[in-house]
Amino acid sequence: MSTSRRRTIRTNIAWSEVDRITVKGYDLCSDILGKLSLGDMAFLEITDRLPTPRESAMFNAIAVTLVEHGLTPSAVAARMTYTGAPEAMQAAVAAGLCGLGSVFVGSMETAARMLQEALPDPSASADLDELARGIVAGFRARKEIIPGIGHTLHKPIDPRTPRLFELAAQNGYDGPYVKLMQAVAQHAEREYGKSMPVNATGAIGAIASELKLPWKIVRGIGVLARAIGLVGHILEEMREPMAYEIKRRAEEEATAHLRQPRPAAE
Amino acid sequence: MSTSRRRTIRTNIAWSEVDRITVKGYDLCSDILGKLSLGDMAFLEITDRLPTPRESAMFNAIAVTLVEHGLTPSAVAARMTYTGAPEAMQAAVAAGLCGLGSVFVGSMETAARMLQEALPDPSASADLDELARGIVAGFRARKEIIPGIGHTLHKPIDPRTPRLFELAAQNGYDGPYVKLMQAVAQHAEREYGKSMPVNATGAIGAIASELKLPWKIVRGIGVLARAIGLVGHILEEMREPMAYEIKRRAEEEATAHLRQPRPAAE
Amino acid sequence: MSTSRRRTIRTNIAWSEVDRITVKGYDLCSDILGKLSLGDMAFLEITDRLPTPRESAMFNAIAVTLVEHGLTPSAVAARMTYTGAPEAMQAAVAAGLCGLGSVFVGSMETAARMLQEALPDPSASADLDELARGIVAGFRARKEIIPGIGHTLHKPIDPRTPRLFELAAQNGYDGPYVKLMQAVAQHAEREYGKSMPVNATGAIGAIASELKLPWKIVRGIGVLARAIGLVGHILEEMREPMAYEIKRRAEEEATAHLRQPRPAAE
Amino acid sequence: MSTSRRRTIRTNIAWSEVDRITVKGYDLCSDILGKLSLGDMAFLEITDRLPTPRESAMFNAIAVTLVEHGLTPSAVAARMTYTGAPEAMQAAVAAGLCGLGSVFVGSMETAARMLQEALPDPSASADLDELARGIVAGFRARKEIIPGIGHTLHKPIDPRTPRLFELAAQNGYDGPYVKLMQAVAQHAEREYGKSMPVNATGAIGAIASELKLPWKIVRGIGVLARAIGLVGHILEEMREPMAYEIKRRAEEEATAHLRQPRPAAE
Repeated sequence: MSTSRRRTIRTNIAWSEVDRITVKGYDLCSDILGKLSLGDMAFLEITDRLPTPRESAMFNAIAVTLVEHGLTPSAVAARMTYTGAPEAMQAAVAAGLCGLGSVFVGSMETAARMLQEALPDPSASADLDELARGIVAGFRARKEIIPGIGHTLHKPIDPRTPRLFELAAQNGYDGPYVKLMQAVAQHAEREYGKSMPVNATGAIGAIASELKLPWKIVRGIGVLARAIGLVGHILEEMREPMAYEIKRRAEEEATAHLRQPRPAAE
Repeated sequence: MSTSRRRTIRTNIAWSEVDRITVKGYDLCSDILGKLSLGDMAFLEITDRLPTPRESAMFNAIAVTLVEHGLTPSAVAARMTYTGAPEAMQAAVAAGLCGLGSVFVGSMETAARMLQEALPDPSASADLDELARGIVAGFRARKEIIPGIGHTLHKPIDPRTPRLFELAAQNGYDGPYVKLMQAVAQHAEREYGKSMPVNATGAIGAIASELKLPWKIVRGIGVLARAIGLVGHILEEMREPMAYEIKRRAEEEATAHLRQPRPAAE
Repeated sequence: MSTSRRRTIRTNIAWSEVDRITVKGYDLCSDILGKLSLGDMAFLEITDRLPTPRESAMFNAIAVTLVEHGLTPSAVAARMTYTGAPEAMQAAVAAGLCGLGSVFVGSMETAARMLQEALPDPSASADLDELARGIVAGFRARKEIIPGIGHTLHKPIDPRTPRLFELAAQNGYDGPYVKLMQAVAQHAEREYGKSMPVNATGAIGAIASELKLPWKIVRGIGVLARAIGLVGHILEEMREPMAYEIKRRAEEEATAHLRQPRPAAE
Repeated sequence: MSTSRRRTIRTNIAWSEVDRITVKGYDLCSDILGKLSLGDMAFLEITDRLPTPRESAMFNAIAVTLVEHGLTPSAVAARMTYTGAPEAMQAAVAAGLCGLGSVFVGSMETAARMLQEALPDPSASADLDELARGIVAGFRARKEIIPGIGHTLHKPIDPRTPRLFELAAQNGYDGPYVKLMQAVAQHAEREYGKSMPVNATGAIGAIASELKLPWKIVRGIGVLARAIGLVGHILEEMREPMAYEIKRRAEEEATAHLRQPRPAAE
């Protein structure tokens, strides 16, 4: 290790003084506490500024959508972890978050990326239908799954999508990205000959793009929202445990073929 | 593994049907989206019911307090992790959460526990000053640190405490737990002969108790709030990295005594 | 944040030069690679020195014991995590490790602590039977579970214990800590009137103490060993997945009471 | 959630009976304990069979290489986490593992993948030089970094590489994958006009391929090995802490530009 050039390190997030704490330029005690809700604080963390009322309504709606998806693999992982280390609830939430990767939460990141790469400047005039056709053709050629459309359970439509798009319209976020996402779904249905409506992750990817959130940070909204839901699952696991029983049954079934019959052993 | 009795497993958090998603008994699309803010959704996850306006104001205030504490060890861990695995932002948030244990976030759990164990029924009449005296004497006898008082930087007072207690008074949460926490601080100052004011974790422990949140779930508020802040740190690390430089300098200094001088080696 | 006194930071673990890497004072390429096995490398990491042949045999045996316990909650958590983020296998192992807390792996730490606190100097002459009596009486008075004895499945004995103690005898590690652990089990059986033999965590806690490993680092052996086992579970999950099916069934059963019958909904 | 078809779940890793524990078909007590070293146990976990002596020597060598890389971002993350949650050492190791992604440990997975995709059947005769030329041309055309070659510090050669290749030759693993990796380095040097020797991750990727380990599991060796090293870092952090000081300095420097001068404030 040679003596390398020393680079400056800087943060603009927060700093503390003896009698004052400042977060993103705001005084925590006088400007934030009692004035900002948790969702608006999350908006501030992500965008470095306070939301307008419409931004607040829209951002809170997409974040709230992501809080709770029931007994997901992620929730099961968190509950299993709590069973082994109840003194470290934070590690159980962490274990649950570790699984928010490409398969589940990642699809809204991929949807936002698809939209933002196809339409880097949403204020420019664009032929959205033509863009959508090109997107679908591209995914098909690369044999990749188009993010943000279709759902294994919610058929023919994902009930969250019309509600999110309704809120988008009410708040002025039903712009080109929402329209492009819808056009992608229409082209995909035509191309693949089956119902492939926009799902919740597609709607959120589009709305996040309308909110001018770069696609690289979209997964973060899912992560912070799901941390809230995971705390809920751990609290339920505290009061009404299921993890050990799930594990016990899985172990019993999965090893049944290995345990040879032995006389009077058990 | 013998064939054990099969126990029922149940969750009351959420379930999905083809055209409907229900969370804690509420229809996600018609009752929650566009109506609940992220903070109120967190309250619902933790308490199984919607907050009143005063509960919402109070809960959001304590959660917001916990979102951002600057460049904590937890934030550094998240940034270090992002440096090695930028494709897995969720794991970076998870790594940051893993450190929210007894030393930092845990103290508000311990403060809430101290208060709730001393005063199990806050509606019963109690001599709070006498309770506080007993608490301080007990901690002193066991040579344990009293949670929720004193601060290494914020002296003589933690600026968050008067603000949080002001909000508690405005919303009707300045009841026996807040008074008991303050009495503990006064007795501790007398007993130890130095300034030991209620700090932010003490204020939050007391207010959470006023909100009737069992102490066992108080750490969860810190965990979900900090997940939001960690996303903020990772976004900054994306744009203006510091983790590698911090590591580089630490490595250089920490191994300097080991690298022997060698002629013309570097 | 005032300008605090700058403290020196130092590590003695490893450092790199252009043409040489040194680990714990040994040249990685000439002293370690091809000469040290993975288990001996772990011994070096934990104790800062190379093991003697007997230390190597004993240490490898206890570490190997801890690698694989089948479909534990920790293994289920790792598999669930892999399902959601197959591109981040390291996060799946991490999620599995997060649950190695007080309930499972922690008991061998607690056993080692119990033994080392009762007998700080194993070379001093001590009445082990009297020490054991006191230990059991103390745990009973505090209504705490005695670590390292009893097992829910392996009855009347844990098959690992006689084998580990046999290896301890062969290698000269059947000293006072092993004898004290056995005496604790005997006193506990007498005191509680039921069979409570030394289990694997008790045997490992005792043998680790014989190896002069401070109790604070004993959990670490479990953590590093189980990381190996978790990689095995993730590889099996890759080839023959079970996590999603476990989750699907749990979800179906756990929410059955909530889904009301609706005409022709599904 | 409709009533889906129930799929069988199975594991072949391990199962426990009252008086016996079986791992991968071997009796833990009579076949494994005292007979298998930790590294050979890892080989069994990964390949489902015991290693030959040459496989054992080679596998242990590559695993040992990966245990310790000094004060990496991963080690710093583990130490930071321990500082906040010393009661949950397992979570500190987990936090450290979370960062073993594409940037550091991932490169040996990518190297193994590159080699195995170019040469699916290593027993077939192949023009390795031509394959290498094609690999380099492909990476250059896609503007991707070729994995396994070059190093920022170890110049002109990574000292681990000749030692690992020497061990490979001694044990009969200097076959087509090792030769292909070396040919890739030569073509890359010619193509890019600068020194780009095989680094340790390239050597390990090639040797793992010689050992017939599928590239998808190669990262797992890095993960399990590094878990050992992280335990070593946490033990050092227990005895000689540096994390808080690293954080304190980083915080001080990174926020210096924000703290405005105030009269007599500090």
